[in-house]
Amino acid sequence: MPSIRIVLVEPKNEGNVGAIARVMKNFGVEDLVLIRPCPLGAEARQRAMHGLDVLGSARTVPDIDDATADVDLLVATSGVETGNEKRFARISIPPRDLAARISAMKGRVGILFGREDFGLRDEEIRACDLLVTIPASKSYPILNVSHAAAILLYELHAGRGSRTTTRPASGLEKERLHEAFGALMASTDYPEHKRARTKVMFRRLLGRAVPTKWEFHALMGVFQRATKRIQRLERER
Amino acid sequence: MPSIRIVLVEPKNEGNVGAIARVMKNFGVEDLVLIRPCPLGAEARQRAMHGLDVLGSARTVPDIDDATADVDLLVATSGVETGNEKRFARISIPPRDLAARISAMKGRVGILFGREDFGLRDEEIRACDLLVTIPASKSYPILNVSHAAAILLYELHAGRGSRTTTRPASGLEKERLHEAFGALMASTDYPEHKRARTKVMFRRLLGRAVPTKWEFHALMGVFQRATKRIQRLERER
Repeated sequence: MPSIRIVLVEPKNEGNVGAIARVMKNFGVEDLVLIRPCPLGAEARQRAMHGLDVLGSARTVPDIDDATADVDLLVATSGVETGNEKRFARISIPPRDLAARISAMKGRVGILFGREDFGLRDEEIRACDLLVTIPASKSYPILNVSHAAAILLYELHAGRGSRTTTRPASGLEKERLHEAFGALMASTDYPEHKRARTKVMFRRLLGRAVPTKWEFHALMGVFQRATKRIQRLERER
Repeated sequence: MPSIRIVLVEPKNEGNVGAIARVMKNFGVEDLVLIRPCPLGAEARQRAMHGLDVLGSARTVPDIDDATADVDLLVATSGVETGNEKRFARISIPPRDLAARISAMKGRVGILFGREDFGLRDEEIRACDLLVTIPASKSYPILNVSHAAAILLYELHAGRGSRTTTRPASGLEKERLHEAFGALMASTDYPEHKRARTKVMFRRLLGRAVPTKWEFHALMGVFQRATKRIQRLERER
Protein backbone atom coordinates (compact mmCIF):
# COMPACT_ATOMS: atom_id res chain seq x y z
CA MET A 1 0.00 0.00 0.00
CA PRO A 2 1.36 3.43 -0.89
CA SER A 3 1.32 6.38 1.47
CA ILE A 4 -1.59 8.74 0.85
CA ARG A 5 -1.54 12.53 0.62
CA ILE A 6 -4.75 14.52 0.62
CA VAL A 7 -4.56 17.80 -1.33
CA LEU A 8 -7.36 20.35 -1.00
CA VAL A 9 -7.52 22.92 -3.79
CA GLU A 10 -8.76 26.30 -2.58
CA PRO A 11 -11.10 25.07 0.16
CA LYS A 12 -13.57 27.84 1.03
CA ASN A 13 -15.13 26.40 4.17
CA GLU A 14 -12.87 25.90 7.18
CA GLY A 15 -15.34 23.42 8.70
CA ASN A 16 -14.74 21.11 5.75
CA VAL A 17 -10.97 21.31 6.22
CA GLY A 18 -11.34 20.38 9.89
CA ALA A 19 -13.73 17.53 9.06
CA ILE A 20 -11.27 16.18 6.50
CA ALA A 21 -8.42 16.29 9.04
CA ARG A 22 -10.60 14.23 11.37
CA VAL A 23 -11.54 11.60 8.82
CA MET A 24 -7.90 11.35 7.68
CA LYS A 25 -6.99 10.53 11.27
CA ASN A 26 -9.85 8.01 11.35
CA PHE A 27 -8.26 6.15 8.47
CA GLY A 28 -4.63 6.55 9.48
CA VAL A 29 -3.67 9.16 6.86
CA GLU A 30 -1.74 12.19 8.12
CA ASP A 31 -0.32 14.01 5.08
CA LEU A 32 -2.52 17.04 4.30
CA VAL A 33 -1.61 19.80 1.85
CA LEU A 34 -3.72 22.91 1.32
CA ILE A 35 -3.54 25.06 -1.80
CA ARG A 36 -4.60 28.68 -1.20
CA PRO A 37 -7.06 27.76 1.57
CA CYS A 38 -9.52 30.01 3.38
CA PRO A 39 -8.38 31.16 6.84
CA LEU A 40 -8.50 28.31 9.35
CA GLY A 41 -9.86 29.19 12.78
CA ALA A 42 -11.89 27.81 15.64
CA GLU A 43 -14.43 25.95 13.50
CA ALA A 44 -11.75 24.04 11.62
CA ARG A 45 -10.14 23.03 14.91
CA GLN A 46 -13.47 22.00 16.45
CA ARG A 47 -14.43 19.83 13.52
CA ALA A 48 -10.97 18.23 13.44
CA MET A 49 -11.51 16.66 16.89
CA HIS A 50 -8.69 14.14 17.40
CA GLY A 51 -7.40 15.00 13.93
CA LEU A 52 -6.12 18.31 15.27
CA ASP A 53 -2.51 17.21 14.78
CA VAL A 54 -3.23 16.44 11.11
CA LEU A 55 -4.69 19.93 10.74
CA GLY A 56 -1.80 21.49 12.64
CA SER A 57 0.85 19.81 10.51
CA ALA A 58 -0.87 20.56 7.18
CA ARG A 59 1.35 22.34 4.68
CA THR A 60 0.03 25.34 2.76
CA VAL A 61 1.39 25.83 -0.76
CA PRO A 62 0.60 28.26 -3.60
CA ASP A 63 -0.14 25.77 -6.37
CA ILE A 64 -0.65 22.16 -7.40
CA ASP A 65 2.93 21.59 -8.59
CA ASP A 66 4.23 22.40 -5.12
CA ALA A 67 1.75 20.00 -3.61
CA THR A 68 2.43 17.09 -5.91
CA ALA A 69 6.07 17.23 -7.05
CA ASP A 70 6.98 14.18 -4.94
CA VAL A 71 3.83 12.23 -5.70
CA ASP A 72 4.01 8.98 -7.72
CA LEU A 73 0.38 8.80 -8.73
CA LEU A 74 -1.90 11.81 -8.83
CA VAL A 75 -5.63 11.24 -8.54
CA ALA A 76 -8.33 13.81 -9.24
CA THR A 77 -11.83 13.57 -7.79
CA SER A 78 -15.00 14.85 -9.36
CA GLY A 79 -18.70 14.54 -8.71
CA VAL A 80 -19.48 15.19 -12.35
CA GLU A 81 -19.28 12.17 -14.59
CA THR A 82 -19.35 12.36 -18.32
CA GLY A 83 -21.07 9.98 -20.67
CA ASN A 84 -19.15 11.53 -23.51
CA GLU A 85 -16.09 9.47 -24.35
CA LYS A 86 -14.57 12.36 -26.21
CA ARG A 87 -14.27 14.24 -22.94
CA PHE A 88 -11.64 11.64 -22.04
CA ALA A 89 -10.22 13.73 -19.20
CA ARG A 90 -13.54 13.27 -17.40
CA ILE A 91 -13.72 9.49 -17.77
CA SER A 92 -13.49 8.17 -14.25
CA ILE A 93 -13.22 5.05 -12.17
CA PRO A 94 -15.09 4.36 -8.92
CA PRO A 95 -13.25 4.50 -5.55
CA ARG A 96 -13.13 0.72 -5.22
CA ASP A 97 -11.25 0.39 -8.49
CA LEU A 98 -8.78 2.96 -7.27
CA ALA A 99 -8.25 0.98 -4.07
CA ALA A 100 -7.70 -2.22 -6.05
CA ARG A 101 -5.33 -0.55 -8.48
CA ILE A 102 -3.07 1.04 -5.91
CA SER A 103 -3.14 -1.68 -3.24
CA ALA A 104 0.02 -3.34 -4.60
CA MET A 105 1.75 -0.05 -5.22
CA LYS A 106 4.56 1.50 -3.21
CA GLY A 107 5.44 5.18 -3.13
CA ARG A 108 3.03 8.09 -2.69
CA VAL A 109 -0.48 8.68 -4.02
CA GLY A 110 -1.85 12.21 -4.00
CA ILE A 111 -5.61 12.72 -4.06
CA LEU A 112 -6.91 16.11 -5.16
CA PHE A 113 -10.22 17.48 -3.95
CA GLY A 114 -11.59 20.59 -5.62
CA ARG A 115 -13.38 23.71 -4.49
CA GLU A 116 -16.73 23.31 -2.74
CA ASP A 117 -18.56 25.25 -5.44
CA PHE A 118 -17.03 24.19 -8.73
CA GLY A 119 -14.61 21.39 -8.01
CA LEU A 120 -11.44 20.94 -10.05
CA ARG A 121 -10.85 22.78 -13.32
CA ASP A 122 -10.45 20.76 -16.49
CA GLU A 123 -6.75 21.57 -16.70
CA GLU A 124 -6.25 20.42 -13.10
CA ILE A 125 -8.00 17.15 -13.87
CA ARG A 126 -5.95 16.67 -17.03
CA ALA A 127 -2.75 16.96 -14.98
CA CYS A 128 -3.80 13.92 -12.93
CA ASP A 129 -3.09 10.26 -13.68
CA LEU A 130 -6.57 9.13 -12.75
CA LEU A 131 -10.01 10.55 -12.11
CA VAL A 132 -12.24 9.05 -9.46
CA THR A 133 -15.99 9.64 -9.21
CA ILE A 134 -18.16 8.34 -6.42
CA PRO A 135 -21.24 6.64 -7.90
CA ALA A 136 -24.26 8.52 -6.56
CA SER A 137 -27.78 9.63 -7.41
CA LYS A 138 -27.96 11.07 -10.92
CA SER A 139 -30.29 13.78 -9.69
CA TYR A 140 -27.81 15.09 -7.09
CA PRO A 141 -24.36 13.53 -7.37
CA ILE A 142 -22.37 16.36 -5.76
CA LEU A 143 -21.23 15.29 -2.31
CA ASN A 144 -19.90 17.51 0.41
CA VAL A 145 -16.10 17.47 -0.01
CA SER A 146 -15.48 15.95 3.42
CA HIS A 147 -17.99 13.19 2.64
CA ALA A 148 -16.18 12.48 -0.61
CA ALA A 149 -12.88 12.35 1.28
CA ALA A 150 -14.41 10.05 3.90
CA ILE A 151 -15.60 7.60 1.24
CA LEU A 152 -12.28 7.57 -0.62
CA LEU A 153 -10.25 7.11 2.54
CA TYR A 154 -12.63 4.39 3.68
CA GLU A 155 -12.15 2.50 0.41
CA LEU A 156 -8.37 2.84 0.51
CA HIS A 157 -8.36 1.66 4.13
CA ALA A 158 -10.66 -1.28 3.31
CA GLY A 159 -8.36 -2.18 0.41
CA ARG A 160 -5.58 -2.59 2.93
CA GLY A 161 -7.30 -5.74 4.10
CA SER A 162 -6.52 -5.26 7.77
CA ARG A 163 -9.53 -6.43 9.70
CA THR A 164 -10.09 -7.46 13.24
CA THR A 165 -11.66 -10.87 13.06
CA THR A 166 -13.54 -13.02 15.48
CA ARG A 167 -12.73 -16.71 15.46
CA PRO A 168 -15.17 -18.51 13.19
CA ALA A 169 -16.39 -21.95 14.15
CA SER A 170 -14.33 -24.66 12.44
CA GLY A 171 -15.69 -27.04 9.84
CA LEU A 172 -15.69 -29.81 12.44
CA GLU A 173 -17.61 -27.71 14.94
CA LYS A 174 -20.18 -26.83 12.32
CA GLU A 175 -20.63 -30.50 11.45
CA ARG A 176 -21.27 -31.24 15.12
CA LEU A 177 -23.85 -28.47 15.17
CA HIS A 178 -25.58 -29.91 12.11
CA GLU A 179 -25.63 -33.32 13.79
CA ALA A 180 -27.12 -31.76 16.91
CA PHE A 181 -29.78 -30.07 14.80
CA GLY A 182 -30.52 -33.40 13.11
CA ALA A 183 -30.73 -35.16 16.49
CA LEU A 184 -33.19 -32.51 17.71
CA MET A 185 -35.40 -33.09 14.69
CA ALA A 186 -35.22 -36.86 15.19
CA SER A 187 -36.13 -36.59 18.88
CA THR A 188 -39.30 -34.68 18.00
CA ASP A 189 -40.34 -37.18 15.30
CA TYR A 190 -39.94 -34.44 12.71
CA PRO A 191 -41.37 -35.91 9.47
CA GLU A 192 -38.68 -38.13 7.92
CA HIS A 193 -39.23 -36.92 4.38
CA LYS A 194 -38.66 -33.28 5.42
CA ARG A 195 -35.52 -33.82 7.50
CA ALA A 196 -33.00 -33.78 4.68
CA ARG A 197 -34.16 -30.49 3.24
CA THR A 198 -34.57 -28.85 6.63
CA LYS A 199 -30.99 -29.84 7.42
CA VAL A 200 -29.84 -28.23 4.19
CA MET A 201 -31.86 -25.13 5.04
CA PHE A 202 -30.05 -24.90 8.36
CA ARG A 203 -26.69 -25.47 6.70
CA ARG A 204 -27.31 -22.64 4.22
CA LEU A 205 -28.54 -20.33 6.94
CA LEU A 206 -25.44 -20.92 9.06
CA GLY A 207 -23.25 -20.74 5.99
CA ARG A 208 -24.46 -17.23 5.35
CA ALA A 209 -24.18 -16.22 9.00
CA VAL A 210 -20.60 -17.56 9.47
CA PRO A 211 -20.98 -18.30 13.20
CA THR A 212 -18.19 -17.64 15.67
CA LYS A 213 -16.92 -20.31 18.06
CA TRP A 214 -18.89 -18.71 20.83
CA GLU A 215 -22.11 -18.75 18.82
CA PHE A 216 -21.46 -22.36 17.89
CA HIS A 217 -21.18 -23.35 21.54
CA ALA A 218 -24.25 -21.37 22.59
CA LEU A 219 -26.40 -22.90 19.84
CA MET A 220 -25.06 -26.40 20.55
CA GLY A 221 -26.04 -25.90 24.16
CA VAL A 222 -29.65 -25.08 23.32
CA PHE A 223 -30.09 -27.93 20.82
CA GLN A 224 -28.40 -30.56 22.99
CA ARG A 225 -30.34 -29.57 26.11
CA ALA A 226 -33.63 -29.90 24.22
CA THR A 227 -32.72 -33.26 22.71
CA LYS A 228 -31.48 -34.70 26.02
CA ARG A 229 -34.55 -33.51 27.87
CA ILE A 230 -36.88 -35.13 25.37
CA GLN A 231 -34.87 -38.37 25.52
CA ARG A 232 -34.90 -38.39 29.32
CA LEU A 233 -38.63 -37.68 29.54
CA GLU A 234 -39.29 -40.39 26.97
CA ARG A 235 -37.30 -42.92 29.05
CA GLU A 236 -39.13 -41.93 32.22
CA ARG A 237 -42.53 -42.51 30.66
CA MET B 1 -33.01 -3.74 -2.71
CA PRO B 2 -35.03 -2.72 0.34
CA SER B 3 -36.00 0.84 1.11
CA ILE B 4 -33.68 2.53 3.60
CA ARG B 5 -34.64 4.59 6.61
CA ILE B 6 -32.03 6.62 8.47
CA VAL B 7 -32.78 7.05 12.18
CA LEU B 8 -30.76 9.55 14.22
CA VAL B 9 -30.91 9.00 17.97
CA GLU B 10 -30.67 12.29 19.91
CA PRO B 11 -28.44 14.20 17.47
CA LYS B 12 -26.86 17.13 19.29
CA ASN B 13 -25.38 19.05 16.36
CA GLU B 14 -27.78 20.48 13.79
CA GLY B 15 -24.97 20.72 11.24
CA ASN B 16 -24.62 16.95 11.30
CA VAL B 17 -28.35 16.50 10.73
CA GLY B 18 -28.20 18.81 7.70
CA ALA B 19 -25.10 17.07 6.35
CA ILE B 20 -26.83 13.70 6.67
CA ALA B 21 -29.91 14.99 4.82
CA ARG B 22 -27.59 16.07 1.99
CA VAL B 23 -25.74 12.77 1.74
CA MET B 24 -29.04 10.87 1.86
CA LYS B 25 -30.15 12.88 -1.16
CA ASN B 26 -26.77 12.13 -2.82
CA PHE B 27 -27.53 8.42 -2.54
CA GLY B 28 -31.25 8.54 -3.29
CA VAL B 29 -32.50 7.87 0.26
CA GLU B 30 -35.26 10.15 1.55
CA ASP B 31 -36.69 8.59 4.71
CA LEU B 32 -35.22 10.38 7.75
CA VAL B 33 -36.49 9.94 11.31
CA LEU B 34 -35.17 11.95 14.25
CA ILE B 35 -35.48 10.82 17.86
CA ARG B 36 -35.42 13.72 20.34
CA PRO B 37 -33.17 15.88 18.13
CA CYS B 38 -31.55 19.22 18.96
CA PRO B 39 -33.35 22.27 17.50
CA LEU B 40 -32.81 22.47 13.74
CA GLY B 41 -32.15 25.94 12.37
CA ALA B 42 -30.18 27.81 9.74
CA GLU B 43 -27.04 25.69 9.98
CA ALA B 44 -28.91 22.44 9.43
CA ARG B 45 -30.61 23.94 6.37
CA GLN B 46 -27.33 25.31 4.97
CA ARG B 47 -25.52 22.02 5.34
CA ALA B 48 -28.45 20.14 3.77
CA MET B 49 -27.96 21.93 0.43
CA HIS B 50 -30.13 20.11 -2.15
CA GLY B 51 -31.16 17.67 0.58
CA LEU B 52 -33.36 20.36 2.09
CA ASP B 53 -36.51 18.42 1.16
CA VAL B 54 -35.18 15.37 3.01
CA LEU B 55 -34.59 17.54 6.07
CA GLY B 56 -38.00 19.20 5.71
CA SER B 57 -39.88 15.91 5.50
CA ALA B 58 -38.00 14.28 8.38
CA ARG B 59 -40.28 12.88 11.08
CA THR B 60 -39.53 13.57 14.74
CA VAL B 61 -40.55 10.86 17.22
CA PRO B 62 -40.06 10.36 20.96
CA ASP B 63 -38.41 6.93 20.94
CA ILE B 64 -36.91 4.11 18.94
CA ASP B 65 -40.04 1.98 18.85
CA ASP B 66 -41.92 4.78 17.08
CA ALA B 67 -39.12 5.04 14.57
CA THR B 68 -38.79 1.36 13.80
CA ALA B 69 -42.19 -0.32 14.24
CA ASP B 70 -42.57 -0.84 10.48
CA VAL B 71 -38.94 -1.81 9.85
CA ASP B 72 -38.07 -5.36 8.73
CA LEU B 73 -34.36 -5.29 9.53
CA LEU B 74 -32.95 -2.97 12.16
CA VAL B 75 -29.25 -2.13 11.96
CA ALA B 76 -27.22 -0.45 14.68
CA THR B 77 -23.98 1.39 13.95
CA SER B 78 -21.03 1.74 16.29
CA GLY B 79 -17.48 2.96 16.04
CA VAL B 80 -16.43 0.77 18.92
CA GLU B 81 -15.56 -2.77 17.98
CA THR B 82 -14.99 -5.53 20.43
CA GLY B 83 -12.46 -8.29 20.16
CA ASN B 84 -14.27 -10.13 22.92
CA GLU B 85 -16.62 -12.73 21.47
CA LYS B 86 -18.59 -12.91 24.69
CA ARG B 87 -19.64 -9.29 24.22
CA PHE B 88 -21.78 -10.77 21.46
CA ALA B 89 -24.07 -7.74 21.20
CA ARG B 90 -21.04 -5.79 20.01
CA ILE B 91 -19.96 -8.27 17.33
CA SER B 92 -20.27 -6.36 14.11
CA ILE B 93 -20.01 -6.68 10.35
CA PRO B 94 -18.44 -4.14 7.99
CA PRO B 95 -20.66 -1.97 5.74
CA ARG B 96 -19.86 -4.01 2.64
CA ASP B 97 -21.18 -7.17 4.26
CA LEU B 98 -24.37 -5.32 5.15
CA ALA B 99 -24.78 -4.20 1.55
CA ALA B 100 -24.26 -7.74 0.28
CA ARG B 101 -26.64 -9.26 2.80
CA ILE B 102 -29.55 -6.91 2.17
CA SER B 103 -29.16 -6.44 -1.56
CA ALA B 104 -31.63 -9.22 -2.32
CA MET B 105 -34.06 -8.19 0.38
CA LYS B 106 -37.39 -6.45 -0.01
CA GLY B 107 -39.10 -4.43 2.71
CA ARG B 108 -37.55 -1.74 4.86
CA VAL B 109 -34.15 -1.52 6.53
CA GLY B 110 -33.70 0.97 9.37
CA ILE B 111 -30.20 2.17 10.19
CA LEU B 112 -29.65 3.70 13.63
CA PHE B 113 -26.95 6.28 14.27
CA GLY B 114 -26.20 7.21 17.87
CA ARG B 115 -25.38 10.39 19.71
CA GLU B 116 -22.28 12.31 18.67
CA ASP B 117 -20.68 11.92 22.10
CA PHE B 118 -21.48 8.39 23.18
CA GLY B 119 -23.21 6.63 20.33
CA LEU B 120 -25.91 4.06 20.95
CA ARG B 121 -26.53 2.53 24.38
CA ASP B 122 -25.98 -1.19 24.84
CA GLU B 123 -29.73 -1.81 25.17
CA GLU B 124 -30.38 0.06 21.93
CA ILE B 125 -27.77 -2.05 20.16
CA ARG B 126 -29.20 -5.25 21.60
CA ALA B 127 -32.63 -4.43 20.12
CA CYS B 128 -31.14 -4.40 16.61
CA ASP B 129 -30.79 -7.33 14.23
CA LEU B 130 -27.30 -6.38 13.14
CA LEU B 131 -24.45 -4.17 14.19
CA VAL B 132 -22.27 -2.48 11.60
CA THR B 133 -18.85 -1.00 12.31
CA ILE B 134 -16.76 0.87 9.78
CA PRO B 135 -13.23 -0.54 9.80
CA ALA B 136 -10.95 2.36 10.71
CA SER B 137 -7.74 3.25 12.51
CA LYS B 138 -7.47 1.52 15.88
CA SER B 139 -6.05 4.66 17.42
CA TYR B 140 -9.07 6.80 16.46
CA PRO B 141 -11.97 4.79 15.05
CA ILE B 142 -14.77 7.23 15.93
CA LEU B 143 -16.01 8.91 12.77
CA ASN B 144 -18.15 12.01 12.57
CA VAL B 145 -21.75 10.72 12.37
CA SER B 146 -22.38 12.26 8.94
CA HIS B 147 -19.19 10.62 7.64
CA ALA B 148 -20.37 7.29 8.98
CA ALA B 149 -23.74 7.82 7.28
CA ALA B 150 -22.01 8.81 4.03
CA ILE B 151 -19.95 5.60 4.01
CA LEU B 152 -22.91 3.36 4.80
CA LEU B 153 -25.13 4.98 2.19
CA TYR B 154 -22.31 4.81 -0.33
CA GLU B 155 -21.91 1.07 0.27
CA LEU B 156 -25.65 0.41 0.06
CA HIS B 157 -25.83 2.42 -3.16
CA ALA B 158 -22.83 0.55 -4.60
CA GLY B 159 -24.44 -2.75 -3.61
CA ARG B 160 -27.51 -1.96 -5.66
CA GLY B 161 -27.62 -4.10 -8.73
CA SER B 162 -29.30 -6.97 -10.45
CA ARG B 163 -29.77 -9.86 -8.05
CA THR B 164 -32.04 -12.79 -7.71
CA THR B 165 -34.53 -11.92 -5.04
CA THR B 166 -35.87 -14.19 -2.35
CA ARG B 167 -38.59 -13.13 0.04
CA PRO B 168 -37.03 -12.41 3.41
CA ALA B 169 -38.90 -13.15 6.61
CA SER B 170 -40.67 -10.03 7.86
CA GLY B 171 -39.84 -8.26 11.09
CA LEU B 172 -42.94 -9.81 12.67
CA GLU B 173 -42.02 -13.31 11.58
CA LYS B 174 -38.55 -12.91 12.99
CA GLU B 175 -39.96 -11.77 16.31
CA ARG B 176 -42.11 -14.93 16.41
CA LEU B 177 -39.02 -17.00 15.70
CA HIS B 178 -37.11 -15.29 18.51
CA GLU B 179 -40.03 -16.00 20.84
CA ALA B 180 -40.03 -19.64 19.76
CA PHE B 181 -36.30 -19.84 20.45
CA GLY B 182 -36.89 -18.30 23.88
CA ALA B 183 -39.69 -20.76 24.59
CA LEU B 184 -37.44 -23.66 23.64
CA MET B 185 -34.79 -22.47 26.07
CA ALA B 186 -37.38 -22.02 28.80
CA SER B 187 -38.80 -25.51 28.26
CA THR B 188 -35.35 -27.05 28.77
CA ASP B 189 -34.67 -25.05 31.94
CA TYR B 190 -31.82 -23.31 30.17
CA PRO B 191 -30.01 -21.29 32.88
CA GLU B 192 -31.97 -18.08 33.42
CA HIS B 193 -28.92 -15.84 33.60
CA LYS B 194 -27.71 -17.03 30.20
CA ARG B 195 -31.01 -16.70 28.35
CA ALA B 196 -30.81 -13.00 27.53
CA ARG B 197 -27.40 -13.21 25.94
CA THR B 198 -28.16 -16.45 24.11
CA LYS B 199 -31.25 -14.78 22.67
CA VAL B 200 -29.16 -11.86 21.44
CA MET B 201 -26.64 -14.33 20.01
CA PHE B 202 -29.43 -15.94 18.02
CA ARG B 203 -30.75 -12.56 16.92
CA ARG B 204 -27.30 -11.57 15.59
CA LEU B 205 -26.83 -14.89 13.88
CA LEU B 206 -30.17 -14.62 12.09
CA GLY B 207 -29.57 -10.94 11.41
CA ARG B 208 -26.43 -11.84 9.52
CA ALA B 209 -28.08 -14.71 7.68
CA VAL B 210 -31.19 -12.69 6.60
CA PRO B 211 -33.52 -15.73 6.54
CA THR B 212 -36.11 -16.23 3.83
CA LYS B 213 -39.77 -16.87 4.61
CA TRP B 214 -39.24 -20.52 3.86
CA GLU B 215 -36.30 -20.76 6.26
CA PHE B 216 -38.31 -18.95 8.89
CA HIS B 217 -41.13 -21.49 8.65
CA ALA B 218 -38.79 -24.47 8.65
CA LEU B 219 -36.91 -23.25 11.72
CA MET B 220 -40.14 -22.34 13.52
CA GLY B 221 -41.34 -25.87 12.85
CA VAL B 222 -38.30 -27.47 14.48
CA PHE B 223 -38.32 -25.21 17.54
CA GLN B 224 -42.05 -25.42 18.14
CA ARG B 225 -42.13 -29.20 17.76
CA ALA B 226 -39.36 -29.56 20.32
CA THR B 227 -40.99 -27.19 22.81
CA LYS B 228 -44.41 -28.81 22.46
CA ARG B 229 -43.02 -32.30 22.82
CA ILE B 230 -41.19 -31.37 26.03
CA GLN B 231 -44.31 -29.70 27.40
CA ARG B 232 -46.49 -32.71 26.55
CA LEU B 233 -44.04 -35.19 28.06
CA GLU B 234 -43.81 -33.06 31.21
CA ARG B 235 -47.60 -33.04 31.54
CA GLU B 236 -47.76 -36.82 31.06
CA ARG B 237 -45.23 -37.43 33.80
